Amino acid sequence: MKKRSLLPLLLIAATPAPAPSPGEIVAAATAEEWVTIAPADLLVMDLAPNVKGKARRVVIQLMPPPFSQGWVGNIRKLAAAHFWDGTSVNRVQDNYVVQWGDATEKKALPEGLVVVPESEYEASRRTGAPCGSDAIDPGMCNGTSERLLSNPTGKDVYSNDAGFWDGWPLAKNEQFLIWPVHCYGMVGVGRNLSPDTGTGAELYTVIGHAPRHLDRNIALVGRVISGVEQLSSLPRGTGDLGFYKTTKERVPILSVRMGSKVAGLPRYEYLSTDSDSFAKYADARANRRDPFFILPAGGADICNIPVPVRKAP
Amino acid sequence: MKKRSLLPLLLIAATPAPAPSPGEIVAAATAEEWVTIAPADLLVMDLAPNVKGKARRVVIQLMPPPFSQGWVGNIRKLAAAHFWDGTSVNRVQDNYVVQWGDATEKKALPEGLVVVPESEYEASRRTGAPCGSDAIDPGMCNGTSERLLSNPTGKDVYSNDAGFWDGWPLAKNEQFLIWPVHCYGMVGVGRNLSPDTGTGAELYTVIGHAPRHLDRNIALVGRVISGVEQLSSLPRGTGDLGFYKTTKERVPILSVRMGSKVAGLPRYEYLSTDSDSFAKYADARANRRDPFFILPAGGADICNIPVPVRKAP
Repeated sequence: MKKRSLLPLLLIAATPAPAPSPGEIVAAATAEEWVTIAPADLLVMDLAPNVKGKARRVVIQLMPPPFSQGWVGNIRKLAAAHFWDGTSVNRVQDNYVVQWGDATEKKALPEGLVVVPESEYEASRRTGAPCGSDAIDPGMCNGTSERLLSNPTGKDVYSNDAGFWDGWPLAKNEQFLIWPVHCYGMVGVGRNLSPDTGTGAELYTVIGHAPRHLDRNIALVGRVISGVEQLSSLPRGTGDLGFYKTTKERVPILSVRMGSKVAGLPRYEYLSTDSDSFAKYADARANRRDPFFILPAGGADICNIPVPVRKAP
Repeated sequence: MKKRSLLPLLLIAATPAPAPSPGEIVAAATAEEWVTIAPADLLVMDLAPNVKGKARRVVIQLMPPPFSQGWVGNIRKLAAAHFWDGTSVNRVQDNYVVQWGDATEKKALPEGLVVVPESEYEASRRTGAPCGSDAIDPGMCNGTSERLLSNPTGKDVYSNDAGFWDGWPLAKNEQFLIWPVHCYGMVGVGRNLSPDTGTGAELYTVIGHAPRHLDRNIALVGRVISGVEQLSSLPRGTGDLGFYKTTKERVPILSVRMGSKVAGLPRYEYLSTDSDSFAKYADARANRRDPFFILPAGGADICNIPVPVRKAP
C-alpha cells in the first residue's frame, strides 16, 4: 500500500489522462446506446407536497415480460381505477423498505384483478427453445441467456450467477430459472402469508442494503427511476416494522397514473445493458481507477452496478 | 414453487412450532452472550432539534485495535477539543453517504493529530505469531483467524472470505490481511486525493447499499449503533455528490462528546459474534425459515447480517 514517490515535475510530464469514472463513461455514451422507456410502462405517483409546499413525484418503471406480468397487469388496472388516489405511505423502515397503499385495508379493489401463483416469482430461461411457441414466454427465446451479461466478478452470494437483461438486474440458477433481484429502488408487492402473493395494491420499494433474501419470496414489479429520495428521506415509522403509528404521520398520495396519462412527463431512457458503454461502466464500477481510488475492488455486487437512467437530453 | 395442498385439519394437527425469525433468536439470547460497549469507545453526536423541536442524537461505536487506531486516536482528540461543536452535516447523497464536519474547512484543528499512512487501511492477521511481541497488534494473536466466523455462505464478492471478529464485519484475503467493510451504518473518514488519508475531522456514514469498493481505499473508524435514522432521513443535497448547496440547508451539530463525558447515556451491548445465538442468528439471516418465507436464500451477504446492538435491559 506504500505509494512510490515521484518527482513532481516528472509526474506532471508523464501522467496519462486519468481513467474515467463510471459517471464519466455514462456521460460519454452515444445517443444510440440509450433506450427510451415507453410512458405506458411508467407509473407516476404524486405525494402531497412537503412541509415547504414543494411537489413530490416518484416515477416507477414497470417490469417487462416475462417477469411478474400478472401483478403488473393488476397494477395497470389499479392505476386506471385511480385506486391509490387518497391512500398513503404507511411504512418507512430504516435500511429496508418504504411501503404504500390503503392503510384501512377496506377500500374496494377494481374488478378483474387476477390471483397470481407463487411460481411466477421466477421465469424460465428455456435457452434455445424456439420463439413463437405457445410454451415460450415472450422475450425468452433466441438466446436470451447469451444476452444475460454476467456480473463482472462472476460471483453472486444469492445465486449461481447474476447479471443484466434488457436493463434489469437478474439472477439465475442451474435449473434454467431466472428472477429479478431486490436492489435499492426496486419495487415489490406486499403480501400476506403464503400462499397469498398480493394483488399489487400494496407496494414497497427498497431503501437500504439489498434485502436479497426476499428474492423469489415476493414479487418484484419494477423500480423507481426518479424521485426515490422522496421516499427514502421520509421520517422512519416508530411502530413495529417501521409502520407509522398514527394517521397523521402517513404521507398522503394524491394520485397514481400510468405515464401515458400524465401531461408533460419527461422522456426517460436507460443505458442499454447490451451496449459497449454499459460494459465499460460495469467494469469501472467493479474496478475503480479514477483518481480517488488507490485499490480497485476486482468485482462488484450486482446491486452496486445500478443501471443508469436519465431524462432524455 | 407449487405448494403442496394439505387438508386444513391435518395441517393444524401436524405443524411443528414455526421456526424463529432472526429477531426472535436475538431476543432469546442469554445475558452472558451480550457484550457491554465501554462508554469511552462511544462518540455521541447531538444535532440541532428537528423542525418539531425533537432532539436528535446519533451514537457511534469506535473500532477497536488493531483497526484504524491512528484515526480513532485523532477522533478522541477532536472530541476532547469540542472540534465538532458548531459544525454541520453538509452532504446527504441518496443510497450512498451522509457526511459531516467543518464546511468552511477553516476551523483550526487541535494539536497532536497524527498523519496515518494508507497501509493502515488494512491489518495483518499474523496467524499463530506469539502474543506480546512488539511486532504484533493487540488482539491479533492466539488464533484470531480461528475466531473470524465465516459468512455462512463462505462467499464474498469483494474478498476471499468475510466474517465477524469481536462484533465487527471484516473481510480477509490470502495474503494474511484483514480489513473492516463498508456496511450500512459504518462510519469512515473523508479524505482528499491519495496520499492524503484524512485526519478524522470529516466523517461519513453509509446510508445505502454497501459501497464495498471503498474498502481499503478509505479508513473505517466505527459504526452508528443508535440514531442512524436521524442521518438517513435527512433531505438529500441537490449539489454535486449530494452536498447541500446553501448554508441554510446544513444541519447544525450542537456537540460531539466521548460517551464517558455524557451524563445519563444508556448502556449499550452487542451480541457476541462468538456466541451460539449469533451463529443461529446469522444462519437464520441466510436461511429464513419463519412463516413469511417460502424459499430460504441459502446464503447472506456479510452486510445483510448486521450485528445486533441493544440498550441493556
